[in-house]
Amino acid sequence: MNVSDLGEFALIERLRRALGEPVGEQLVAGIGDDAAVWRSAGRYAIATTDTMVAGVHFRADTGDWRGVGWKSLASNISDIAAMGGTPAYALVTLCLPGDTAVTSLDELYAGLRECAAEYGVTVAGGDTVSAPVLAVTVALTGVAAELPGGSPALLRRDAASAGDAVAVTGSLGGSAGGLRALAGGIARAGAAQRLSERHMRPRPRVSAGRAAVAAGVRCGIDVSDGLAQDLGHVCEASGLDAELWLHRLPVDADLVATYPEDALLMAATGGEDYELILVGPDDALKRAEAEAGTSLTIIGRMSAREAAKGVVRALNQRMQEVELGALGWDHFARSAR
Amino acid sequence: MNVSDLGEFALIERLRRALGEPVGEQLVAGIGDDAAVWRSAGRYAIATTDTMVAGVHFRADTGDWRGVGWKSLASNISDIAAMGGTPAYALVTLCLPGDTAVTSLDELYAGLRECAAEYGVTVAGGDTVSAPVLAVTVALTGVAAELPGGSPALLRRDAASAGDAVAVTGSLGGSAGGLRALAGGIARAGAAQRLSERHMRPRPRVSAGRAAVAAGVRCGIDVSDGLAQDLGHVCEASGLDAELWLHRLPVDADLVATYPEDALLMAATGGEDYELILVGPDDALKRAEAEAGTSLTIIGRMSAREAAKGVVRALNQRMQEVELGALGWDHFARSAR
Repeated sequence: MNVSDLGEFALIERLRRALGEPVGEQLVAGIGDDAAVWRSAGRYAIATTDTMVAGVHFRADTGDWRGVGWKSLASNISDIAAMGGTPAYALVTLCLPGDTAVTSLDELYAGLRECAAEYGVTVAGGDTVSAPVLAVTVALTGVAAELPGGSPALLRRDAASAGDAVAVTGSLGGSAGGLRALAGGIARAGAAQRLSERHMRPRPRVSAGRAAVAAGVRCGIDVSDGLAQDLGHVCEASGLDAELWLHRLPVDADLVATYPEDALLMAATGGEDYELILVGPDDALKRAEAEAGTSLTIIGRMSAREAAKGVVRALNQRMQEVELGALGWDHFARSAR
Repeated sequence: MNVSDLGEFALIERLRRALGEPVGEQLVAGIGDDAAVWRSAGRYAIATTDTMVAGVHFRADTGDWRGVGWKSLASNISDIAAMGGTPAYALVTLCLPGDTAVTSLDELYAGLRECAAEYGVTVAGGDTVSAPVLAVTVALTGVAAELPGGSPALLRRDAASAGDAVAVTGSLGGSAGGLRALAGGIARAGAAQRLSERHMRPRPRVSAGRAAVAAGVRCGIDVSDGLAQDLGHVCEASGLDAELWLHRLPVDADLVATYPEDALLMAATGGEDYELILVGPDDALKRAEAEAGTSLTIIGRMSAREAAKGVVRALNQRMQEVELGALGWDHFARSAR
């Protein structure tokens, strides 16, 4: 059996089991959430890692190396934001073919630096290795928020309750629209250009995540695989179902202008928006919105589980169930197609 | 200009400059040492990352996936040991071609787990991505030793003084011998088999590093590029020259038995032994040896710089200078050859 037969999530589960019970007694959250959390010297450290491979996660032919640098760090910052934490120090690993132009690397690092400066992150070290394909891996550490009593205040996937509202920051589908605009070669100006910016220079929601934990929200995840799929991860981890109200989705305005027919589906399933899905009581979400200064839209509700496996039911305005077709993407299934 | 024209060390220097001055005020050691160190909540965190790419850093054809798993973590543990610290939590990133056999991954993870258990490391998370080449990246965090006053006790590359003795733990050249035995297909039994174990299952010197800082040693590096080259890094960072006494090198006995003619050169220049080079006053090194329970051999001495650039002078028994030829390896130059 090969990796592509297994699929991404079964693979992660298999690797988690292969490692056995964690050795560290101070581990608060391990494999299966957006980031790992452990207690260290009376504080809670958060750590995550994310890789971008040329030809798989980004197109090398657009020449936007600065965007690649920005995004490689931003996707990691988003994982820390999705735990309600604050990013701090990064390690950057470059896998480089020998014929990589040094000017491309300069641009990539300029983008990394811009993103690091914007989010107060320090690039503290890393590794450069020779490889047949260009890949950028960032490992990022940060700190979790703490409650007055000293326990960590986190946004966890497994902390949803039946009846909780499901909210999302900002707007959806812009990144998928940008990917399509880049592939179609129309990303030079106007709405399509703004979409491509959303795809290459996502802006992780660190303040919204911090505001949410401060407001008492305890469940969250970022939109990296796609809204429906990421909400599905919350369902699975929390042992619940969810209703997703399609007519309430905050669809990106430039996406509606550029791809009106597919905009809703792209907002529901497109990956890499790096918005936050926040799940909690309505009043806690209201407080979070006020504190964050970021728009928060209620787009669904958690409910008791009906079947064996957690399910996201997408509903239209008349509360009829709608088949979303492709529910986001699976990295290995995608590459195997 | 391409990456292969620039070479590994010039590339790292260029990337360091591209990032500008670090944002984090708590950064104690950044790019240019074995690992990064920063202050966090009254303690000193250490972090490092290291990547192994199939066909570049290991042969996939030997089928020793367990060894690959062990080594991918061990090389990172060695970086923490080379700072005098204690490893704690790891993130593991797998770049995987879709046709990777799942059983190979199971083996790789079994090796990771063995190494993690041996050194008290917890694998807390990671990332799996689709890629055309198999690569394993480990990011490892740990904690630095502390002096009674609360400042960090580290083994730094730039902390050597003229007159300091240069010592090395254990024996040298075994890993290079193992690589050669594996390439020659003779690694199945006896001395050659033990050499291949040294290559695939190196045993980082965490206790020796801790004993050294406890004994007052403040300068160290691990043998990853090769003794002469790694001692050269100490010279460069400390602004000194070094004498390397070839007749004193603790050459691996199995290496002498297997490749008698090349053993000395391989001990002086072979990479990935993951022994520690410790540089300090003779009495501090003596105390470190007693505390570590690991043999420590004095192999040279630091001296004031004579030329513009720090130089390692390899000397024979009659104190005549010897040309070492290939001084260790440069990862990019190697791949470009």
